[in-house]
Amino acid sequence: MKIAEPQARFLRACRGLPVDRTPVWFMRQAGRYMAEYRALRQRYSLLEICAQPELAAEVTLQPVRALGVDAAILFADILLPLVPMGIDLDFVKGQGPVIGNPVRSPADVQALRTFDPAEDLSHVMAAIRLLRQELPESVPLIGFAGAPFTVGSYLIEGGSSRHYLHAKSLMYGQPETWHALMEKLARVQAAYLLAQAQAGAQALQLFDSWVGALSPDDYRRFVLPHSRDVLDAASSAGVPLIHFGTGTATLLEDMQQAGGDVIGLDWRVPLDQGWARLGTESAVQGNLDPLALFAPEPERRRQVDRILDQAAGRPGHIFNLGHGILPQTPVEHVRAVVEQVHARALEPAQEPIL
Amino acid sequence: MKIAEPQARFLRACRGLPVDRTPVWFMRQAGRYMAEYRALRQRYSLLEICAQPELAAEVTLQPVRALGVDAAILFADILLPLVPMGIDLDFVKGQGPVIGNPVRSPADVQALRTFDPAEDLSHVMAAIRLLRQELPESVPLIGFAGAPFTVGSYLIEGGSSRHYLHAKSLMYGQPETWHALMEKLARVQAAYLLAQAQAGAQALQLFDSWVGALSPDDYRRFVLPHSRDVLDAASSAGVPLIHFGTGTATLLEDMQQAGGDVIGLDWRVPLDQGWARLGTESAVQGNLDPLALFAPEPERRRQVDRILDQAAGRPGHIFNLGHGILPQTPVEHVRAVVEQVHARALEPAQEPIL
Repeated sequence: MKIAEPQARFLRACRGLPVDRTPVWFMRQAGRYMAEYRALRQRYSLLEICAQPELAAEVTLQPVRALGVDAAILFADILLPLVPMGIDLDFVKGQGPVIGNPVRSPADVQALRTFDPAEDLSHVMAAIRLLRQELPESVPLIGFAGAPFTVGSYLIEGGSSRHYLHAKSLMYGQPETWHALMEKLARVQAAYLLAQAQAGAQALQLFDSWVGALSPDDYRRFVLPHSRDVLDAASSAGVPLIHFGTGTATLLEDMQQAGGDVIGLDWRVPLDQGWARLGTESAVQGNLDPLALFAPEPERRRQVDRILDQAAGRPGHIFNLGHGILPQTPVEHVRAVVEQVHARALEPAQEPIL
Repeated sequence: MKIAEPQARFLRACRGLPVDRTPVWFMRQAGRYMAEYRALRQRYSLLEICAQPELAAEVTLQPVRALGVDAAILFADILLPLVPMGIDLDFVKGQGPVIGNPVRSPADVQALRTFDPAEDLSHVMAAIRLLRQELPESVPLIGFAGAPFTVGSYLIEGGSSRHYLHAKSLMYGQPETWHALMEKLARVQAAYLLAQAQAGAQALQLFDSWVGALSPDDYRRFVLPHSRDVLDAASSAGVPLIHFGTGTATLLEDMQQAGGDVIGLDWRVPLDQGWARLGTESAVQGNLDPLALFAPEPERRRQVDRILDQAAGRPGHIFNLGHGILPQTPVEHVRAVVEQVHARALEPAQEPIL
């Protein structure tokens, strides 16, 4: 049976199919660096925007209109599913997420509720349905969730962390509790991703943003099986899966083992070297340093060109940053990167890699 | 001409010579996790301890007495040389170093003073001379300095940083100013290292702790030549040089090019893989996750054994952490790691690798 080929550049690249131009989108492409977003944030908190489908959809569309990117990503936060799990979550200015009741014991893990995302996060699904009505077919909508390690580290630490003292202490000191927490998070995130696809998300990204804090040995023992559970379950949705992390130079092959059609690369890994390690079975997404967006034009163009040179027009490259756009980023620089990536026509003779 | 072989385990390993036991020391082995240190800090600030040779020497000796490590490292801070350069430096509780007058323009770089470390940091040299009288020959004294990138990033940011917004903006946006700053820092740090060796330091470590924030391309363009200048100059002291960074999985070969007899590995790089990439011309130092020191005995022993297994008794391994000891670390766990490393006798038939 031959599956119909997608037409949108972004979805074609996810599948390793030839494209006319390299598709480009940016992690955190909706956010504080845009005046339209800051204007809305004058009146609504982050969680209020996420809770109101019209607002979440509006914020999701802002960068699509302003930048001409090849994909939209639902405006949401990886910690949203913690609320129906019974976690007291807040976002504090200058500090990031703050969790009032961190999870550090078997009883804490036991107390975490599982839930029905279609019902308990129905506002997310409503935003997705709204967006699918608004977005053209050429701009697919990406849904996403946080991976068990990254979400778990927030849960255990009670917020952002530098050294993961509590998370790693639990991992090493109470491995059964650790695995019980990871299993619960894997079930919740898998159901959440499936519900997003059901509502209309056309690709799904798993954010394991902080997993680069681990050695490969620890990743394999404590994380890989749980990320694999999420990605295995999500694969039944039939949409492309993107598996992303930062600081993952020594984890790439293991993350590929865990799953995902597309592997995210950060700027520390030269794109050609990372892709060579992953081989032809994976597409890749990345990998401009978000700080390159602050550079004057010649330096910025040089860095973008270098990545496109490393990709060498090979089907299966999605241009992105190595991590999210920072709030101070000049919006006109972001737009210029989209134009630069789109200005470079790809050879018509590309063969599919997957 | 045959140079006399050093007898101390640590110095032998730096030179790739066979040893009876793997030498072990810890970055930040003097510090807040030790009751003796906390007691002194009740009465003196960090900068006061550094400024008084007797106190700096006493703090340096505390872990030598308590742990049985194979090397002492001078108690000091990589930012000390900024004070005679004209920088307003303070250490703020819970925040780390704070710089009152960050360096962000050509005039700021111009205004930085170079100085004579033997004179303007004479208290450091006095502490080294005191320590050489106190320490047995089996416990060599390590001196150290911060690498141009890592010290420069503090100078430009005005303190610790997560994204290096100001540092990378200067690097990309004002490359001439960037290189002028790096050159000045390289001159200062090289002179500082040479003065420490002159005063009696028996090995020198260059800390490029935060260089893992850079892509390999940026490292080669903006950092490598300056780190090489420091290490080239320091090599004339005739003592082993250790070149250390974290998050450097994609930078190891370039750091080796910049210099150092010993290359530091953090826990993200499996020791055997990192060493294989560096080849036989380098010794290696590392690479236990500092968080493994919080683990209960079986897990802790497993991780230590794994590193020793990966080193496979090959001459030229110095056991250490992948980064510094954290303040909450149980001191008895640190001592147990020293005992575990020392309990493992190495084969007598080792051949020198260098």
